[in-house]
Amino acid sequence: MKLVSFNYAGTDSFGIYTDHGIIDLLTKFGQRYPDLKSALSAEALDEIRKYAQSAPISYSHAEVTLLPVIPNPGKIFCIGHNYEAHRVETNRAKTDHPSVFMRYPESQTAHLQPLLKPFESDMLDYEGEIAIVIGKSGRRIKQNEAWDYVAGYSCYNDGSVRDWQWHTQQFGPGKNFASTGSFGPYLVTRDEIADGEIITVTTRLNDQIMQQGDTSQMLFPIPELIEYCSTFLTLNPGDVIVTGTPSGVGAKRNPPIFMKEGDHIEINIDKIGVLRNTVAIG
Amino acid sequence: MKLVSFNYAGTDSFGIYTDHGIIDLLTKFGQRYPDLKSALSAEALDEIRKYAQSAPISYSHAEVTLLPVIPNPGKIFCIGHNYEAHRVETNRAKTDHPSVFMRYPESQTAHLQPLLKPFESDMLDYEGEIAIVIGKSGRRIKQNEAWDYVAGYSCYNDGSVRDWQWHTQQFGPGKNFASTGSFGPYLVTRDEIADGEIITVTTRLNDQIMQQGDTSQMLFPIPELIEYCSTFLTLNPGDVIVTGTPSGVGAKRNPPIFMKEGDHIEINIDKIGVLRNTVAIG
Repeated sequence: MKLVSFNYAGTDSFGIYTDHGIIDLLTKFGQRYPDLKSALSAEALDEIRKYAQSAPISYSHAEVTLLPVIPNPGKIFCIGHNYEAHRVETNRAKTDHPSVFMRYPESQTAHLQPLLKPFESDMLDYEGEIAIVIGKSGRRIKQNEAWDYVAGYSCYNDGSVRDWQWHTQQFGPGKNFASTGSFGPYLVTRDEIADGEIITVTTRLNDQIMQQGDTSQMLFPIPELIEYCSTFLTLNPGDVIVTGTPSGVGAKRNPPIFMKEGDHIEINIDKIGVLRNTVAIG
Repeated sequence: MKLVSFNYAGTDSFGIYTDHGIIDLLTKFGQRYPDLKSALSAEALDEIRKYAQSAPISYSHAEVTLLPVIPNPGKIFCIGHNYEAHRVETNRAKTDHPSVFMRYPESQTAHLQPLLKPFESDMLDYEGEIAIVIGKSGRRIKQNEAWDYVAGYSCYNDGSVRDWQWHTQQFGPGKNFASTGSFGPYLVTRDEIADGEIITVTTRLNDQIMQQGDTSQMLFPIPELIEYCSTFLTLNPGDVIVTGTPSGVGAKRNPPIFMKEGDHIEINIDKIGVLRNTVAIG
């Protein structure tokens, strides 16, 4: 099942994405669950599944504007150099623990919305990644129970303003420019992909493959990331872990390639979907 | 004027802190401003000032439990090694830009509430800091207009789990353990302190002075921090910038000193207040 956050006629809503259109859930659940992140519990998802089988289409695809899958996550943890070939290209030391930095929700944008190259930099880079979305609250989650906390998956383009990322050792500023982190198009629920199945992530810039790698290259697999991040803070429904990018980023090419106005950038992830954006300036 | 967030009889509220007790503002403003961060605009503060002069005390100090000054900031930007003597003790290179890392609201705790040393570490350290709280929205704010965006000041203990801070180059995990960042006791409004006035920050562990420094030592003064952070994202009312700590942190002493259960830790900032916590395990 595929779930989306969207805007219809000026109102933010959420629903089920089908090949034929969108089934609105806000009108059905709004009192109990005002947004997608609050509707990710197992009980809510069971109820939503019934609508997926029987409810009529509410809107055509053309009638809605997609929002970031979760527009308002409490936390967005991003994992640095988590694919071996990317660790090597960035010349980062091996570490015993995942490298975790943070994004704020305002740095996000959605499928088919502009990805913004800020006025301040000409070094906007792509990073295609699998995002996992948390479905239930937990602290100090053990790896062997970690999958139970996953509501589903989506594509993420962890857009990075490299000069600002490298101003100091802390990545945050370069990873938090407004509308640089694209998240979508939809959440694919956990039941659609076997836990730990090997999945390929491909990034295309203007139709040319720039990154391709699969999850077998992850230095810290998803259960380890959940265990680590939940050690310091409680993970809550709607929290996002962006699990790292394969090699091939623009900054480490020779010569480097950065995105410019009008470029088309696409993240394609097996069994999850295709996330597309066009670069604008802002 | 001093403003607080607090809990009274199970309900989260906010109000004016006076020597004689608390003037509740939720009962007066709740429809328009449900919490302190939404009541920080200049117009709201003008109205609040009238209540400060005339309204009766709602509760005694003993009747309320203080919360972090802003319990739900949209963003908490923390500035690393921003006092010269602390930069030297931590052996960090001089940088042309401030070092910015992020905290999430769940990592916060309040005046007189436990500061938690997690089970996972024996390296919980203090960092006394001035917090500035943003009062109006702005992006790409210039230094010469930055003070207009400050609603006021508070004390912050940027409690740091050093081993987790040093797992990789990214500070986030060690800076985000639950209930390690103490924020309080109250917000002192901007009008009480001249813009850029030199202020001394003192940290006492079990009544012994561990840190003392003043804002003349800041490598990046407050207007520069506001300009830098607002370049990548819009600053909003209630956002917090924690402006860095003077030298004397426990980790860099010889031998190192870390906080343990039962320790009393106090951040005393001229003209702002005294923030006290006792360390517990959790």
